[in-house]
Amino acid sequence: AIGTPKAVSLWLDVVDDPIERADQLGDLTEAEAVRLTELLTVPEAVDLLDTLDLHTAVDALRIAPPARAGAVVAHLETDRAAELLRELDAAESERILGRVPADRAAVLRGLLRWPEDSVAAHMVPDVIAVDDSVTAGEAIQQVRDHSAKLRQDSHIGAYVFAVADDGRLRGVVSFRELVLADEGTLVDDLCTHEVVSVTALTDQEEAARLLVRHRLLALPVVDDADHLLGVLTADDAADIVGEETTEDAERQGGSQPLDVPYLRASPFLLWRKRIVWLLVLFVAEMYTGNVMKAFEDELDAVVALAFFIPLLIGTGGNTGTQITTTLIRAMATENVRMRDVGRVVVKELSAGSFVAIAMAGAGFVRAWMLGVEVQVMVTIALSLAAIILWSSLIASVIPLVLKKLRVDPAVVSGPMIATLVDGTGLLIYFWIAKLTLPELAGL
Amino acid sequence: AIGTPKAVSLWLDVVDDPIERADQLGDLTEAEAVRLTELLTVPEAVDLLDTLDLHTAVDALRIAPPARAGAVVAHLETDRAAELLRELDAAESERILGRVPADRAAVLRGLLRWPEDSVAAHMVPDVIAVDDSVTAGEAIQQVRDHSAKLRQDSHIGAYVFAVADDGRLRGVVSFRELVLADEGTLVDDLCTHEVVSVTALTDQEEAARLLVRHRLLALPVVDDADHLLGVLTADDAADIVGEETTEDAERQGGSQPLDVPYLRASPFLLWRKRIVWLLVLFVAEMYTGNVMKAFEDELDAVVALAFFIPLLIGTGGNTGTQITTTLIRAMATENVRMRDVGRVVVKELSAGSFVAIAMAGAGFVRAWMLGVEVQVMVTIALSLAAIILWSSLIASVIPLVLKKLRVDPAVVSGPMIATLVDGTGLLIYFWIAKLTLPELAGL
Repeated sequence: AIGTPKAVSLWLDVVDDPIERADQLGDLTEAEAVRLTELLTVPEAVDLLDTLDLHTAVDALRIAPPARAGAVVAHLETDRAAELLRELDAAESERILGRVPADRAAVLRGLLRWPEDSVAAHMVPDVIAVDDSVTAGEAIQQVRDHSAKLRQDSHIGAYVFAVADDGRLRGVVSFRELVLADEGTLVDDLCTHEVVSVTALTDQEEAARLLVRHRLLALPVVDDADHLLGVLTADDAADIVGEETTEDAERQGGSQPLDVPYLRASPFLLWRKRIVWLLVLFVAEMYTGNVMKAFEDELDAVVALAFFIPLLIGTGGNTGTQITTTLIRAMATENVRMRDVGRVVVKELSAGSFVAIAMAGAGFVRAWMLGVEVQVMVTIALSLAAIILWSSLIASVIPLVLKKLRVDPAVVSGPMIATLVDGTGLLIYFWIAKLTLPELAGL
Repeated sequence: AIGTPKAVSLWLDVVDDPIERADQLGDLTEAEAVRLTELLTVPEAVDLLDTLDLHTAVDALRIAPPARAGAVVAHLETDRAAELLRELDAAESERILGRVPADRAAVLRGLLRWPEDSVAAHMVPDVIAVDDSVTAGEAIQQVRDHSAKLRQDSHIGAYVFAVADDGRLRGVVSFRELVLADEGTLVDDLCTHEVVSVTALTDQEEAARLLVRHRLLALPVVDDADHLLGVLTADDAADIVGEETTEDAERQGGSQPLDVPYLRASPFLLWRKRIVWLLVLFVAEMYTGNVMKAFEDELDAVVALAFFIPLLIGTGGNTGTQITTTLIRAMATENVRMRDVGRVVVKELSAGSFVAIAMAGAGFVRAWMLGVEVQVMVTIALSLAAIILWSSLIASVIPLVLKKLRVDPAVVSGPMIATLVDGTGLLIYFWIAKLTLPELAGL
């Protein structure tokens, strides 16, 4: 299928969905893929690498001849180029950077130096900064002179930053306001001086959420002396928030984050990301066997007790899962903070009481349906209520305690809460049974 | 605490975090809150309503005197004003709209007419459109003339849309390119003519994801004849995606979406959103009691079988929860579509096989630790493997089948899969036990 440059251009025209493109590229043999990198024009390759998912794009960069890869990296948006190079090992990325014009290579090496989780690693260093003492008209002229060097990106172009003589960030004005203002107005008078900014080592997610909360198009990144280093753009912030959300979702499902798109994850990778937590939970759940064994005589005496075990512990786990998922999402979107711990626990225990009453009723009816003796019905109803309250308590407290300990509460998965409730719920069940059932009195 | 306008201004200065503000406002009595709405200047009130969470803002609008509310609504950004009014009932919103200048009230009534889930309900109708036959210089003059009418919003200002004589959307150019271009260039020559746009009734989430995927600052909304109606801005798209993500998370935790911020949800509301699914899952889980009762003789004969029940069904549920959470998130971010169903099932059954082998080993060891006979160890190992494969199959197929049936796959919660696996897992366990254990041969 890969023949001529024309055929490749046609393909880019016809298949314009990035996911579809990545799918089809994934089907190529390595030889075909190398041939493709040679046939694409540089602008075509830039466009392709800009839209492909990270892993497909990195693979493409890895197999392309270094001169080709260098030409493409030189023309990619700076933050995207750094993002791709970061995935390569040092030798691979230097082989490509050697073919990139020296000044641009220097900028990219500077970006690669920042820790991966810092906002600086994700910023665009090409910002539009003007002296705060110039007029609007002069500022526009500076932007015009500067714009040849800048990538075409409307996010970066949205704001013009004013810096003082010593390079410190003094203010910000939207490009639009600058253009629509009277030409003679001083930039300093147009600017907002209360600039929302972050320092370079700020955690990327914190910076992204700050940008979103303030509804900005770009968030300036400064060094410790308030010198402007670059901006985090809103589209990159959306990517960061999206990735973190995916990681949180995967953690709460009881696996480690995949870190690659699902369709590109091999069965072995899926196994690796899942087996750790499965084994941890398995070991924790083993405790249920000891509880059951400890109450072997009781089970022997009233075998009907066993019928209700999955129902009781299942309902306890469901109650806890409902609470943690809601609470952890609320904590991620910053509605809930440590100081709210009292409110959260009171709220959850109140809601849990209502749930306990309703489910105790349901449990009583279910026990009656199975035709067990009336004391067993009472045992089931009481146990359900107690397990639900217990589950509500631990599901609401544990995420907050973790947050207090500076552990990401998103590690609390539904399966983890379910596992905790399983063993402890059985204990509650057998204790209540011993108190309620005369047959177990002597055991 | 609420005394003078000055004290209120001071409060706005000191407490600038929207969540903190909402918290403190929530502590006011109604009389105090009404007094506050009277003390705020209109710009202060606009700023406050702009940043507060939706429910606190709507409450504030509801208690404010209508003339005050009208003045504030007249000055809010159009999409925000419509968002707030949408939460009020018709009588309340008309009481406020009656105090808003007629032309603006008409625009707001027009927005409120669109279905809540449509992109049109969330668009900003104030777009910058110029004739496609004018020059860049003339276009900037038109923008300048128009800008007095436009709200100050850099998202809206980022693009200038070119429309033909008949009002059809013809192209788009960034405001920046327009300003930096030669004054005499025709707008038509500067424009991109392949405009990414959506029609008014497009689902809000679909539109928001389209904007994010194309990294746009604003997405034009057109009617069926391609006339420009407004734009969805990137910040509103981020809100839409964030809300949908919260709803998905809550659904996957096995509750109905709360639809209000967690801290504002009353215990009774939490109960109402949770009890429905808890009861549904309870009824589904009841089946486990029948399975246990059907195998009562087997349990009586080998009481050790009961020890492993929580461990087996718990592990099955954990395996399924891992898969659905990962898969549903991948489907939400559109990595996985219907046509991938074959790949997904093969991938999950392969990963599931590795998981099954590892966990069968763990199960064998655990059974040996509990000192049961060797046939029971084999039963446990085989059952674990079979339950894990079964769980992998249903957890990967059900979300895709639901998507095929046009049901949102996010309704498949971890608790739902766990419940499905509990009953069927027990059946698998007892069948394998009957095949493996000689004691059960005659039963």
